Formats: sequence, C-alpha cells, structure tokens
Amino acid sequence: MSTTRTTPTEDPAALDRTDPERHIAEAAEAYRNWSRWGDDDRLGTLNFIDDAERARAAGLVRRGASFSLSQSFDMDGPQLGWRRRTNPVHTMLDTGTDAAAGLQGFPHGIGGADDVIAMPLQCSTQWDGLGHIFDRGIAWNGRPAGDVVTSSGDQVTGIEHARSAIVGRGVLLDIARFLRPEASDTDADNAAAGELPDGYAITTADLEACIEAQGPTSAVGRGDLVLVRTGRYARALREGWNGYAGGPSPGLSFTTAGWLHRTEVAAVATDTWGFEVRPNEFDDAFQPLHQIVIPNMGLTIGEMWNLEALAADCAADGVYEFLLVAPPLPITGAVGSPVNPIAVK
Amino acid sequence: MSTTRTTPTEDPAALDRTDPERHIAEAAEAYRNWSRWGDDDRLGTLNFIDDAERARAAGLVRRGASFSLSQSFDMDGPQLGWRRRTNPVHTMLDTGTDAAAGLQGFPHGIGGADDVIAMPLQCSTQWDGLGHIFDRGIAWNGRPAGDVVTSSGDQVTGIEHARSAIVGRGVLLDIARFLRPEASDTDADNAAAGELPDGYAITTADLEACIEAQGPTSAVGRGDLVLVRTGRYARALREGWNGYAGGPSPGLSFTTAGWLHRTEVAAVATDTWGFEVRPNEFDDAFQPLHQIVIPNMGLTIGEMWNLEALAADCAADGVYEFLLVAPPLPITGAVGSPVNPIAVK
Amino acid sequence: MSTTRTTPTEDPAALDRTDPERHIAEAAEAYRNWSRWGDDDRLGTLNFIDDAERARAAGLVRRGASFSLSQSFDMDGPQLGWRRRTNPVHTMLDTGTDAAAGLQGFPHGIGGADDVIAMPLQCSTQWDGLGHIFDRGIAWNGRPAGDVVTSSGDQVTGIEHARSAIVGRGVLLDIARFLRPEASDTDADNAAAGELPDGYAITTADLEACIEAQGPTSAVGRGDLVLVRTGRYARALREGWNGYAGGPSPGLSFTTAGWLHRTEVAAVATDTWGFEVRPNEFDDAFQPLHQIVIPNMGLTIGEMWNLEALAADCAADGVYEFLLVAPPLPITGAVGSPVNPIAVK
Amino acid sequence: MSTTRTTPTEDPAALDRTDPERHIAEAAEAYRNWSRWGDDDRLGTLNFIDDAERARAAGLVRRGASFSLSQSFDMDGPQLGWRRRTNPVHTMLDTGTDAAAGLQGFPHGIGGADDVIAMPLQCSTQWDGLGHIFDRGIAWNGRPAGDVVTSSGDQVTGIEHARSAIVGRGVLLDIARFLRPEASDTDADNAAAGELPDGYAITTADLEACIEAQGPTSAVGRGDLVLVRTGRYARALREGWNGYAGGPSPGLSFTTAGWLHRTEVAAVATDTWGFEVRPNEFDDAFQPLHQIVIPNMGLTIGEMWNLEALAADCAADGVYEFLLVAPPLPITGAVGSPVNPIAVK
Repeated sequence: MSTTRTTPTEDPAALDRTDPERHIAEAAEAYRNWSRWGDDDRLGTLNFIDDAERARAAGLVRRGASFSLSQSFDMDGPQLGWRRRTNPVHTMLDTGTDAAAGLQGFPHGIGGADDVIAMPLQCSTQWDGLGHIFDRGIAWNGRPAGDVVTSSGDQVTGIEHARSAIVGRGVLLDIARFLRPEASDTDADNAAAGELPDGYAITTADLEACIEAQGPTSAVGRGDLVLVRTGRYARALREGWNGYAGGPSPGLSFTTAGWLHRTEVAAVATDTWGFEVRPNEFDDAFQPLHQIVIPNMGLTIGEMWNLEALAADCAADGVYEFLLVAPPLPITGAVGSPVNPIAVK
Repeated sequence: MSTTRTTPTEDPAALDRTDPERHIAEAAEAYRNWSRWGDDDRLGTLNFIDDAERARAAGLVRRGASFSLSQSFDMDGPQLGWRRRTNPVHTMLDTGTDAAAGLQGFPHGIGGADDVIAMPLQCSTQWDGLGHIFDRGIAWNGRPAGDVVTSSGDQVTGIEHARSAIVGRGVLLDIARFLRPEASDTDADNAAAGELPDGYAITTADLEACIEAQGPTSAVGRGDLVLVRTGRYARALREGWNGYAGGPSPGLSFTTAGWLHRTEVAAVATDTWGFEVRPNEFDDAFQPLHQIVIPNMGLTIGEMWNLEALAADCAADGVYEFLLVAPPLPITGAVGSPVNPIAVK
Repeated sequence: MSTTRTTPTEDPAALDRTDPERHIAEAAEAYRNWSRWGDDDRLGTLNFIDDAERARAAGLVRRGASFSLSQSFDMDGPQLGWRRRTNPVHTMLDTGTDAAAGLQGFPHGIGGADDVIAMPLQCSTQWDGLGHIFDRGIAWNGRPAGDVVTSSGDQVTGIEHARSAIVGRGVLLDIARFLRPEASDTDADNAAAGELPDGYAITTADLEACIEAQGPTSAVGRGDLVLVRTGRYARALREGWNGYAGGPSPGLSFTTAGWLHRTEVAAVATDTWGFEVRPNEFDDAFQPLHQIVIPNMGLTIGEMWNLEALAADCAADGVYEFLLVAPPLPITGAVGSPVNPIAVK
Repeated sequence: MSTTRTTPTEDPAALDRTDPERHIAEAAEAYRNWSRWGDDDRLGTLNFIDDAERARAAGLVRRGASFSLSQSFDMDGPQLGWRRRTNPVHTMLDTGTDAAAGLQGFPHGIGGADDVIAMPLQCSTQWDGLGHIFDRGIAWNGRPAGDVVTSSGDQVTGIEHARSAIVGRGVLLDIARFLRPEASDTDADNAAAGELPDGYAITTADLEACIEAQGPTSAVGRGDLVLVRTGRYARALREGWNGYAGGPSPGLSFTTAGWLHRTEVAAVATDTWGFEVRPNEFDDAFQPLHQIVIPNMGLTIGEMWNLEALAADCAADGVYEFLLVAPPLPITGAVGSPVNPIAVK
C-alpha cells in the first residue's frame, strides 16, 4: 500500500479513469479510521453516535408522524439473480384456507397461519455490515478478510453487534429535488422532475449546495444518519425496475469520500441499489467508493431505501431532520441486514 | 356463536377447565372489536396510537439510552421443528476466505461477502400479525379465514400494512421482579429471583398490582405498547432453552383478556414463546387467549422478546416508560415478522 | 359434469377455440381412469408397469451406455419467478477456502465442505406428481382437491408413494428430428433442423407417423415410459432460455389425450417446460391437457428433460428403446420432484 | 507428509489410539489414487465402472423387482442442526385447499399445487461428492482444497460430473444379519437380531467372512457398488432416531481402507449417518476413514441409505447382487446430493 499521503481530489473531472488502483490507494490512506475506536472495534462510524446525540434526536420530534423508509419484501422486487441474489420467497406453513376446511387439528375452534421466508439479506431495503466489503484482502479495522468472514459468517463484525446502535438524528438531503426541480425533454433515461438521470455522480459540491439550499435543519455533522435521495426509486415506481438492481444509476461520486470522512457522519443511506454512481467513474471498476468507506472508514451504508413519503413531507414543511430508528435484525454473523427504518418527525 | 352476552370471569379459579368452548365464546363476544375502525381495517388496536401519542412518547426520552429488545437469530435458537418451525439457517454467498484467496474476480482489489437466510417468520423475536390466528374460521374484523390467508399469504391484513404503525409509548411491567423479588428453594423448575415458574398464570390483579408498585411511569392506557416480563427468557439464558419453544411457561392468564380490552393498549409483548401461560388453563386446549385477542380484539402480539437489559435499567432508575420503535419488516402478505424492537429512554 | 359421453376429436382443427370447458369436460369423461386401480390408488398409470415389464426393460440393455436426461440445477436455469418459481439457490455451509485457512476446528488435518439448497421442486428436470393438477376442484381418483393437498403437502398422493415405481421400458419419440430433418428460412422462431417451432401442436397422427418411421423399437404400449422430443431445449442451448419457462413452445396437442389413454403408457416426459403446446389451443386457457391427464387419467408427466445426448445416440444406431430408471426423491407430501433420469442402452 | 511407505495395519487392535496423524498419513500414502485417471479427473473410483460392467449389471435382473433404497425427506428426519444441517423444510406455493376455495385465478376449472424445498444436500439418503472432504488442505487428485471448493461451490469436482456414472452392479453385504443372526440380552444399546451395536467396527475380516457366507453372488470386485448393512437404520425404525445423526453407531473400521482400495470398488454406501464406526477408533478424532477414502482414494460414499426391504429380499432368495442405479441430482458445484437409489433384481 502507498505510504506517501496525497490529498485525494474531490473533483470528479480530475479522476484518471484508467487508474482506479491509484485513486483507491490514495483515498484509503487519507480516510482510514483503523484503530480510531480501539483494536477491538466492531461498529466503525456508528461510534460517532452517543446517548446525548440520541436524546437530541428524540427532541426533534414535533408532530409524531412516523414514516417507514422500507421498500417491500416480495417476489416483485428488483433482484435478477446476480451472484445468487434473488427476491424473497415467502411461503406459508399453515393457511386460512386450511383452517376454514377444518384440516388443522387444533381444539376449540382455534386456527392459525404461519410462514417462512428465504431471502438474501441484501435483497431489499438493507444495511451493509462492516464485513460486507474488503480492500485488498483487508476488512474493517485492518483485519485480514479471511479471519473475519468465513462460510460460518462474520466472526468479528457481524451485524448483531450494531443491534442497538442505529438510533439518532436523521437528515434528508434531497439532491434530486434540489438539482432537478423540473424535468427536461432531453434526459436519456426519462428521469422526471425530482429525479437524477442514470450516471449522475453526486459531488461534494452538490451535497454542500443542497444543505445550503434546504436550510439549517439540513446541517450535517458528527453522528448524523444521512439519507441521500437520488429519485432513482421514484423512477422505478413509475416505470418498473428496469435495471434498478445492478444497472446504471445516479449515486455518490467516488470523490465524496472526503466529505463523508470529515463530516463524521455515522451512516449514509440512499434510494439506489448501489449507493454510488453507476457506471462507476473508472473504466474497469466495481463499486470503488464501497472499497474506501466500508473497510477503511468503517461506514455503515444503507441501500434501496424508500425515501418518497419522507421526502414529500420534508419538501412540504421545510424540515429535513428527524429521529431515525433503523436497527438491523441481529442475525448472528451477518454481513448485511434487511431493515424497516422509521423516521419520526 | 353465543348471542347472550355474559361477563367473562377475570378470576382464573372460576374457569371451568373442561369447557374452553364456552369461555372462548363468552370472551370473544365480550371483547370483540370488529368494525370499530371500519370494515376495511387492517390494523386493529394499533389504531389506538396516533401521532400525538407518538410525539408524547418521543418526549419521554431523557438520557438517549437505546435498548435492543431482540434475541439472536441463529441456529442456536430454541426451535425444535414443531409445525416446521426451525431456527434460522444463515449461509454465505461470498466470504472473506474466498476474497483473501483471490477467487472473486473483482477488479482493483475489492472483495466482498454476502449472505442469505431461510427462516420461519416466527423463529425468534417477532410480532404476530392479525392473520396469524382464527376463531372458528373467522379472521380479524369478521372476515372468513379462507378469504384472508391463502398459500399466497395474507391477502388483507398482511403485516406490511403495519409498517409505520408500531411507534409509541412503551411500558414495561416486570411482573417477575415484582412477584418474585427473591427465589425460594421449592420452585419446581428452578426459577431464580426475578423469574416466574412455569405454569404461573399472570392475572389482572397481578398486572394492576405491578403497575401500582412500579409507580406512575407504569400507568397503562390507550395506545400503549405493553411489555410483560415473566423472566422465562432469563431462565433460558441461565440454563439453556429447555422447552422454551412450546413447553411449559409462565404467561398471561386467559382471564386477562378483559384487562387487555378495556385498557385499550395497542400491542402487548412478552419474553416467552407463547405469550399466554402454558400449560393452558383448560384441559384440552391450545393457546385460547390468542383466539380471543388476535381475531376478535385485533391485538398485535409480540413474542420471544429480550427484556433483560431494559428491565435491569428500569429497576435501577424506577422509570418504566420509554419510546418504543418496533416496526415489522414489510414482507408482503406475512402473518408475522421478525423484529428488533428498540426502546429509547 | 357432463354425463353424455361424446368421443372427443383427435383433430386439432376441429377444436372450438372459444369453448375449452366443453372440450375439457368431454375429454375428462372419456379418458377418466378413476377407481381403475381401486379407491385407495396413489399411482395412477404407473400401475401399468409390473415386474415382468421391468425385467423385459432391463433386457433391452446392450452396450451398457448410461445417459443422464437431466438439465442442470443452478441459478442459470430458466425460471423467472412466475408464481414464486425461482432457480435453485445452492449455498455452502463449509468450504475448501475455509479448510485451507485452517478455520474449521477439526482434528488431525481433516477438512470438509457441505452445502444446502433452496429450490422449487419443479425448477428443472422434474416429475409432476398426481397432486399437482386438479379438474374443477377434483384431484386424481376423484378425491376433493382440498382433502388431498393442504399447506402441509399432499396427504394422499405425495410423490413418495412412487419411490420405486418409475423403472421400465423407455421409448424416445424424436418428433422434431422426424418432422423437421432440415430447417427452413421461414421459421418465425429460429428453430433449427431437428427442432419444432413454437406453437407447433404435436398430433396423434404425428406420434403414430414418428413411431412408424423410427421402426419397431419405437412401438408404444402398456407400461411404457414415453419421451417426446420437441427440440425446444436444443434451441435453448443454442440461443439462451428466451421464454423457455412459460413462454410459447412446441408440445403435445390437447387432442393427444386419447392416444395417451388408449396406449396405456405409464408416464410421458418432454424436453419442454410445459409438456403441451403453448400458446394453448383455446383462446383463454391454461394447460388444458394437464387438466385431463393428471387428475382424470392419473398420468405422471415429466418436464424439462434433457433428451439431447440420448436422441443423438438413438438417431445414430436406430434403436429407440432402453431401460429407463427415473425415481423421484421421496419428499413426503410433494406434488413434484426433481429427478435425474437415467436411460441405459 | 510421510514419504516412507509403511503397510497400514488391517487389525483394529493394532491401532495406536493416541496417534491418528500417523495412521492417517500411512493410509493416505498407501491408498492414494491421485493421477490414476489423469490430472483432470473428476470421478475417482467411479472410473472403475465401464459400459461393459453396466451391461453385465443389467443382465443380473431376473424378476424385475424394484427397490427404493431411500429414506424419507421430511421434517421428521434425524438432523439436529449440527453445523447447520437441518431436516428438509418442504412448503407449498399453491394448495388444493386454495383451489377448492376458487382462489387461484385460473380459467376453465383447472387448479394446481406447487411446492418448494430447503434442505442440506446431506440431510437424508445421499452421496458424498469428491469435494466433501479434504486431507491436510488437499482435495481429491491432489488439488488444494481452496482452489476446489469456494463459497460458489465445487469448481472442479462438483457432483454434476457424476450425473450418468453411478449405474452398475450392486452388491449387498448384510454384515448385521451375518454377524448377529440372533440378539442377546446384554447389548448395551438394544440392538436386535440383524443389528450391530453402536461402536462395532466392521473389519476386513468381517467383510470377507460375510462374502464367503453369503455365497458367490456376493463376490466383490472392480467397479462394484457395495452396500454395507449395519442394521443401525433398522434400530432407528424401531426406537426412534436416538442419535442416528452424529451419535455412536456401528460402521466400517478405519482399517478397512486397504480392502476398499484393493477391491477397486466404485462406491460404497451404508445405512448409517457416517459410514465409519462411531465413536471413531482414535481418542481425539473425527471421521478419519473419510479422510483416507474421499480425498486420497477418490471413493464416492453413500450414507443414510435404507437397505431394509432389499436386505430382506436378499436374505429370502440368497441373491445379493443386482442392478443399481443411483444418480445424483446434477446440482452444479455440489459436494453432495440427495438420491433415491434403485436396486433392480
């Protein structure tokens, strides 16, 4: 690994598209948080949230309006089988039709229905755990990937360790409404008003301008849970999935790693499959921003969130901050988790 | 069904153990909430929570301490295969050992781990949906069971409809600490201090006395989310599952249906597999209280919750109320959902 | 149901495309085998095979050449999620990479790999069990469908009952090579030589002419296991699945039910997803031939078989009969089963 | 690894129970078949079967009697969750009760049932693939385990390669009936007549004496598929599983590796969970015979077979040879496969 520290560019135009290795090495070096919370750490930037922050976040609740930020979990989801990621298969162990037919064998007229599910943990609205991505064989906090995640699961940073951590102040950055309040005829992929086109790389400048435009409830700082709306899911609701899972998409630029680092946010989630812009900003690349923020920075990332109702509400009242409660299921050793995040305003 | 309305007894000793049908018919009649929230209702008593209630609940947060009320989700769980309910099977699609061995085929040194799960929706900490139980062929709000839950899932009251509903004021009733502050040598099933023995039926009188003893933060009323601690899970932590799933257990008496109805609570959860006392209070019976509260009352029930850390905290500071955020995963058509409930004090 | 017995037409051109109900009722009446093997029967036409037939079939083996007639079982299969039918998801519980990394905890240098699968029973090469299809609410042998197949599976005719039955004389009818020895430019769906185009309905006349042309080793009679090759799978191998699962396809005409009945074959399998021609031969229909042959005739049907290597061998040596051993997995209560059928010549 | 070749003992009493490493190293060295069938080999000892052998095997069929050698696949199986091995979970996608209730939406009165399964590939009657076991990090034919089996499955010796191979002459060695034609009162584990007690290690001498006693139809040689009956499954049928999966059991002694090697059998299967005697014959050991025969010898092993009906038939007519057709499901990359083996006499 590079030992000469170079300040990574935050200008996408300055990236050398042919040299992802150099940019990745520089950014990894610059934004690495290893040992910041001790050698035994399992939480990464979620450590930025403390009880006082949580108490302040609860204090943001005014009306008591509750928003689910989850997409649905069913066979109509976007997954196409890439690397065996399917949509959830939900089946019944007992049904009302069986109960109505008197076939269940229970006494005194009680009947029941029961069900099972088989699903990838990252099939729909989800958190990426810290064991989800490695940088050149190394997992979060500098641990060898092979020591961390075996076929028995994540032995060190399993998502169960974050079971009570993801409660704090949420901030919505509605980049899509900010940058594209109106649609134009020329958009290649039919992005409507309030939707970014595929391939649009959200920059640090975009993030900062959006915060400025949205006003003081959008200020982002230590321990915040930042939700970035691109409008990609809104387009899927209008026109069908159409490549939502793994295809081109708006998303964060590789060059936002610096902003994510210096703001000391606890977690970031988007309404896209892959968090970062796709196609990626290098000629031959796969999710290079993941490679910086998960194993090096220790950032927990949310994907495939449904920000539509919340964003409409924020646009209506101009308040972009709220209490966010988004605990993973404590699946022992998991490197991701389905989640139904709740924002309360 | 009986049409003469009889006031059901709230004294367990007055139950005729040989006649569950009569007691069930009386209680169903007395505590039925059908059409209370319209013919299209999908939420039952969760309707008791409104935004104002949620805002008040957020106002209860003082320190910002966050408690996960979930047990683990893994193969070491309590399930024994009854009616095909197994423990979760979590397997990896990609691992760190593969990444370390350079076998994943990704560019620029990125590696990843990914995972899937197969599990009953009621294998660990969970909500029972309104489609989970039927009374003599009838589901919540008076609908024929066969019209509601088919092999395609719950077509009407699927748990996805409650995706943003379960946010409100939580109240812990630590019946086990209240009734058994000290252990005695004579307990058949080795219940320690702060644990009720198997077969102990919690009565309305117990609930009211506990509220009185715990003080004003324990007052229970409309829209509250009530957590009843029996200590059964504490015993499992000490001695192993030992029949936790489906065996004898302390739990609510059938005769508490009246209290659950008149307090207008939104939901109730316990630290046991089955919510109600086991063996049940009739000679030949299976979960008769479920038969009253789910299809007739429309009550959402939580089971297998981990109340240990929260209970210790409440015992320490004497404050038994908190913000509770416990959204189900919006699995389309599900009759139950795993959940990681979060209490914030 | 109709009680006037009408001889169903065996000429596809004589079908009234607007009246599937009439044709189905007539064919069901004409070809029904209910009670032919007693009221308790669980095997249907598999009863046509007896030990003497099996001994004769074994006597057909000359060279000892073994042919697997199975397609693969993996995520690259044809399933698109229709009615929750996915491709198989195969995951590892233990791996060689873990073993190589010394992470398994076994003594004396032993290491291991282990795996699980989640799959629809009809995802790839398969048998349809007798509980798979119902005719107007009635299952095989005249039993009410709701008494036979509940959410606990097929309580009566589960495929486990056929565990030792499907061993006998196989006969390949290579209709595609017979009818289309050469390709023409005008085929709408690019069917090559030896492949029938989509929508081609194989008639009784086609079957009989093929048998005549193939010669005496193709004679079809009581207890035979008949394999009908359409070439649809060959096209999928050339051009990709392209609608293989559920799209248009060549297949048996509805009007072949009479031939299937009077020849007294034990089972029939094809190289297509759906056995019968698609689009079906009525304007608004779904698999009408299934409705006759499974619940009424008691015929076991195989689908998605890989007949390519066997067909090439038969074409080469002119011998179209062989020993066929194709046992289902005895999955208790299953209405279908994956199978790796073996032909031995 | 040891390079001095020592002839391993075939006398269990001569084993040093404290030194499995030495005995394993010696046996591995002595019985290794690496490169015997070329560097690309994927079949191991299955190569011993050729077409002529298959033709001879078919010629053994006299009566045409077909025997399924499979146990059932359902939730009532023996698995207890060890290393995430559960019993199969079979659920319905569509049911007869739904069809009877008119809820399926199909035209002209057709209804259907459909199903899925989730199961370990080694949950019931099965073949161990060549990628199932490693010896000191090395898989069959001398390949590094980490190059062979990743989280994507067995990249080299996946069981799909054996899809047409396992067809040949089967021979039943009914060691249990031979050694224990009568039961005695003193058996610790209640083994009845025709059942070996737990911990009984079948020796080379036992195998040879059994062959001698059973007569010429039991002669074992190159390419044979040998079935060894211990009676352990018979006991499970009488008294329940009682540790069948993973507990003590009769089985082959570690010292039979030499016999397995020099007889050049193609595959061996038993009616036990683990093929070899348990407890194993070393103080601290886990399945040491597996470590010799799979990665070193290339032997395909069957476990959990149901030999009861076949054994009764062989005892009755004195004929212990038959055609055996036992193809694995061609699950791409699998290290094991469920199988319903068919013996035809």
